[in-house]
Amino acid sequence: MRDFTDDLKPASPHGTTILTNERSQSDVPEDELAEHLLSRNDFLGRQKRILRVLEKDPLFEKVKQFNLSRPERYQLGLARAKKIRRYEDQYRWDDEDRSMAQYLCDDVTPYMVHYAMFVTTIREQGSEEQRAYWMPKVESMEVIGCYAQTELGHGSNVRGLECQARWDPKTKEFALHSPTLTASKWWNGTMGRTANHAIVMAQLLLPKNEGSDEYTNKGVHPFIVQIRDMKTHQPMPGIAVGDIGPKYGYAPMDNGYMLFDNHRIPYSAMLSRYSMVDQNNGTYFQPENPAVVYGSLTYVRAQIIMHARLIIARAVTIAVRYTSVRRQFSDRDSKDPKAPELAVLDYPTVQIRILPLLATAFALHYCGESMHRLYETTRAEIDKGDFRRLAVLHAQSSGLKSLCTELAANSIETCRRAMGGHGFGGPSGFIQLNNDYLSKPTVEGDNWMITQQTASYLIKRMQAAAAGKGQPQDDIEKHCRQYLSEKSNYRPDQLRIFDNDEDLVESFRRRSRDMTYRAHVERNERKRSWNSMQIQLRKVSHSESQSILVSNFYDAVNGSSVSSTLKTHLRTLFRLFAFYTMDNEARDFSKANAVSEEDLDALPSKIQELMAQIRPHAVKLVDSWKIPDFLLDSALGRYDGKVYEDLFNRAHRLNPLNEITFNPNYKSEELIMGGGDDIKKILAKL
Amino acid sequence: MRDFTDDLKPASPHGTTILTNERSQSDVPEDELAEHLLSRNDFLGRQKRILRVLEKDPLFEKVKQFNLSRPERYQLGLARAKKIRRYEDQYRWDDEDRSMAQYLCDDVTPYMVHYAMFVTTIREQGSEEQRAYWMPKVESMEVIGCYAQTELGHGSNVRGLECQARWDPKTKEFALHSPTLTASKWWNGTMGRTANHAIVMAQLLLPKNEGSDEYTNKGVHPFIVQIRDMKTHQPMPGIAVGDIGPKYGYAPMDNGYMLFDNHRIPYSAMLSRYSMVDQNNGTYFQPENPAVVYGSLTYVRAQIIMHARLIIARAVTIAVRYTSVRRQFSDRDSKDPKAPELAVLDYPTVQIRILPLLATAFALHYCGESMHRLYETTRAEIDKGDFRRLAVLHAQSSGLKSLCTELAANSIETCRRAMGGHGFGGPSGFIQLNNDYLSKPTVEGDNWMITQQTASYLIKRMQAAAAGKGQPQDDIEKHCRQYLSEKSNYRPDQLRIFDNDEDLVESFRRRSRDMTYRAHVERNERKRSWNSMQIQLRKVSHSESQSILVSNFYDAVNGSSVSSTLKTHLRTLFRLFAFYTMDNEARDFSKANAVSEEDLDALPSKIQELMAQIRPHAVKLVDSWKIPDFLLDSALGRYDGKVYEDLFNRAHRLNPLNEITFNPNYKSEELIMGGGDDIKKILAKL
Repeated sequence: MRDFTDDLKPASPHGTTILTNERSQSDVPEDELAEHLLSRNDFLGRQKRILRVLEKDPLFEKVKQFNLSRPERYQLGLARAKKIRRYEDQYRWDDEDRSMAQYLCDDVTPYMVHYAMFVTTIREQGSEEQRAYWMPKVESMEVIGCYAQTELGHGSNVRGLECQARWDPKTKEFALHSPTLTASKWWNGTMGRTANHAIVMAQLLLPKNEGSDEYTNKGVHPFIVQIRDMKTHQPMPGIAVGDIGPKYGYAPMDNGYMLFDNHRIPYSAMLSRYSMVDQNNGTYFQPENPAVVYGSLTYVRAQIIMHARLIIARAVTIAVRYTSVRRQFSDRDSKDPKAPELAVLDYPTVQIRILPLLATAFALHYCGESMHRLYETTRAEIDKGDFRRLAVLHAQSSGLKSLCTELAANSIETCRRAMGGHGFGGPSGFIQLNNDYLSKPTVEGDNWMITQQTASYLIKRMQAAAAGKGQPQDDIEKHCRQYLSEKSNYRPDQLRIFDNDEDLVESFRRRSRDMTYRAHVERNERKRSWNSMQIQLRKVSHSESQSILVSNFYDAVNGSSVSSTLKTHLRTLFRLFAFYTMDNEARDFSKANAVSEEDLDALPSKIQELMAQIRPHAVKLVDSWKIPDFLLDSALGRYDGKVYEDLFNRAHRLNPLNEITFNPNYKSEELIMGGGDDIKKILAKL
Repeated sequence: MRDFTDDLKPASPHGTTILTNERSQSDVPEDELAEHLLSRNDFLGRQKRILRVLEKDPLFEKVKQFNLSRPERYQLGLARAKKIRRYEDQYRWDDEDRSMAQYLCDDVTPYMVHYAMFVTTIREQGSEEQRAYWMPKVESMEVIGCYAQTELGHGSNVRGLECQARWDPKTKEFALHSPTLTASKWWNGTMGRTANHAIVMAQLLLPKNEGSDEYTNKGVHPFIVQIRDMKTHQPMPGIAVGDIGPKYGYAPMDNGYMLFDNHRIPYSAMLSRYSMVDQNNGTYFQPENPAVVYGSLTYVRAQIIMHARLIIARAVTIAVRYTSVRRQFSDRDSKDPKAPELAVLDYPTVQIRILPLLATAFALHYCGESMHRLYETTRAEIDKGDFRRLAVLHAQSSGLKSLCTELAANSIETCRRAMGGHGFGGPSGFIQLNNDYLSKPTVEGDNWMITQQTASYLIKRMQAAAAGKGQPQDDIEKHCRQYLSEKSNYRPDQLRIFDNDEDLVESFRRRSRDMTYRAHVERNERKRSWNSMQIQLRKVSHSESQSILVSNFYDAVNGSSVSSTLKTHLRTLFRLFAFYTMDNEARDFSKANAVSEEDLDALPSKIQELMAQIRPHAVKLVDSWKIPDFLLDSALGRYDGKVYEDLFNRAHRLNPLNEITFNPNYKSEELIMGGGDDIKKILAKL
């Protein structure tokens, strides 16, 4: 319906004009940079191709979905998952294409765990026979599966899982059982409403000897279990399974709970590639080589970092575009009473929140790339039976997972607050992004907990270096030896961080070694308890991860064959990331004799200089990440800068609440005008 | 329906046993502490009284509300607002009682702005005649009002508002007009669907002289405007008004937009207590004394801080109880392979996130109390026409609003992450708490922006102190003079922060003065531009606010007449807050010669010692905040520790998604088993 608001325009300057000007003033070679960042696996080509399909399908329209109820959100998620799968058949999409569709759709799909953990576990842990039986059913999605590991009472501590699989030699079956309420499987995606099968991780209990009532616990093993009837989709007898209810994010995902009441499963249910029970005499065979598993962990963590960088890039894209368009206040020092209002991004207090994060997206990118390369190399070594580099890779990737997902999770809220009032609104495009991503600091290894793995490895290497016997086991130990032999000569003014980027990299390395060394002294010389050192250990891990990020960034900028224009911009971003990180931890660097006090004092103004250099290029730098409007779903972050038109359109034309006229009179129980006793409908849902 | 899960119990030790033990081992005098904290305005008595009413009313049951759609959330909010208002009539509740009901209900009500800004503005800015006309209608809620100030294009910069009220001398009317789309009123609560009247803030335009087409802008003034028909509740002609759509939080609030198309309002619409237009000749009369307004700002900000402390207390209550109940991993250094798992709160990495926040709740409490007292004193002075202390109060309250709402907003997410996986679930009780509270760093003055007001005041006082003429204007200037005369004698080892609490307070003061002094030198001697100093100014403001928090905390603990047992605990919390804050900003303290390097190095272990002292009392310390389970709505934070039973109950018995059986077969468009073309219903909502 037309009304007088149709003819109104926003006050000038118009957002489109502003962004056009921002783009024309910058020499950032956008397409070159996009290729540089996003050519792995033909990301850009794939994005374009899949986007064309989803964009024109009304099922994938996002604007109004935040008005839906939770049960509707699951239904929508299921509808989209089915549609993507049908597109997969229709267009012969491969796994990467499907992942791209899910990424662009931006709604976690209820099929997710089927595609990921369920398939992978059968493939990796099933025997040849088991794979032959299950894979066709799994691939056709006759069997839809989930992965049931964590429980109500145990997440991080896998050994503490309570669910039992007890071998019954008489019937040649396992009895799956949940002895307590806390043994309930919990959080497992795809399980709540969608899956008809599950991989269940359970403590394998074997009779101590034939006919015995006592059992030996062989630890946690995987079992494949049918959990719902293939026709009615109702839970199988002896199984209680359902969705756990609303969460921060993942509205369309049916994270589930599941309990077993001495539920019998056949001998063939135990996935038996690496470990098995002899069907005849109940003898247990050990896993071959558990180290094999770690290899793919590095791949998964490289993926987590590559995902984290896209999260930051997305938050920063919205924030940079909006704060370029948004104007508020004129310069306080201006003598001109009619001075125009400044773009919000011109204020240093806004820059300091957004621009270092822009640099961080690049830092994570180069680190993820480097991990992918390391994974490729290591994989070849592992295939040849050489596991030596696995430990260091695993240790480094733990710390990096922790730091990078932390940076990404915090980046969203930091950018949101930098956008002021409109940042709080749905059309910011931040709500779902934030709600979904906030799971990451916890899943795949709690961010605080797993830093212990990194620190533990580093301290061991420092201890070995201090002992100094034989050849160093790896590069870290080599550096530790170097540190130990040189540290008495370290003087803070040796490194010229403002003049020489290599010195900047070296400064981060010194500081990390120093942190490790102090922890080594505490643990190995002063014999402090591990738990009492946990806070310090996290700092040890983060300082190493920061050093890795800085050195990978440096290597990538210097080693790459990009144009000199682009290289200049990348170097500015590198320095901003390094100085900003250093400024936040200045005292550590000082203690490590890694930077002079004068240079530390100068950091804030150096950072401000670098931000001023980046400011005119900020819009093109975020453009280069090529995040489509379809994914952003943000009135504030639109490529064309039509911020206010979009905000108004969503409010005035796309808001279902405005289709209802309410009765505000408190003396009346009626809620909707003419609605009668509509209050009963609401009460029934409480 | 009964099933086998009904008989299951969580693994031991049981949460109830754990919390009972935690409580019995601590000597914290819970009731004394509760009285000490919550006696202002009979908070505790009121809470008990109102709780009894709400608890037994099914309309206020919270568990399932997160499954509702946005339109349903508004309806529920409206239903609750009406019910509370009817209770108000029934039980003769006063304003504080109603606020308590809203606080416990924990859902922002669509009537909120009517009760707050709308009533206040008429009362404070209406002429006697206007008040006599409007107040009866407002109090009976025949007239339901909102407050329309911020616009799509302007929030913080009130002078930049675009909405116009043009005086027409011929018809003796004002024409309200929105010349652009960005002139649309935006964010204004209660306006979207509920209100039938609004206070509209608009630029008052008066003809330059009689008959002239040119206008003079007299700035922003308040007008009372009927916006909807009193019978049909439809918008008045010439007005477009509606709800802006979903936001991070405040689902039940109809934050609105509104535009005017040369909408005519009568002469009487302009609220004319302080400024008015002569009806006959169009002459404008100036406001009497704008300073009057600032007085109540201090009150509002004291309230914001008191609210912030309850937010932190709530987050910490949940986190402390859950991490006491939750067990994960046994001690890594233990030789016993069967060592029991440790309570998560026993890990320093969990303590460091939760316990300093527990101390922070107390720090904010004493600061809020002190501001309330200052407000009372100042109010008396203002009534006598003495405005001298207003400026310093206003300056301090800006910085404190910024720091305290920041601390509170961040506390929620920090506690949530410390709770691991279950922290991400709806039953954490954190989702709505977080979503609603995240507005606070922006509203009532953007947290980054308003620190400029504090810093500006401090720098001016330092400048005056440097000039040193006459008597110092206030205590701050007096301290600045003292700082200037003594600073050359400051040595870092003068203050013994670990032995003497007064030295600790003094250390914070020194550091704040040092930050102010450095900023003064930059601004007044080196003539740096204001905008380029913004990042530094925020640090100036925060360091002053931290100093105020620490000194108020110290004064309160030492000046209070609590039992010696309680005083010991309060002192431990005081020291934890002070040391933790200092450790995070250690380098500033070092630069200010306010603490020795040795003491700064010792801070982390001091903090860990203090946390170990507080740990056995953590449960009783949070109990003392007396936050009822009804408000917490948290399975994790229940007083009785039945964490796992509650989590399971919500999932298994109170989850509407589990009442639906879905069809997971991707080849079928059917979503619900037997649902046919149910996909059409979803598509219609997109």
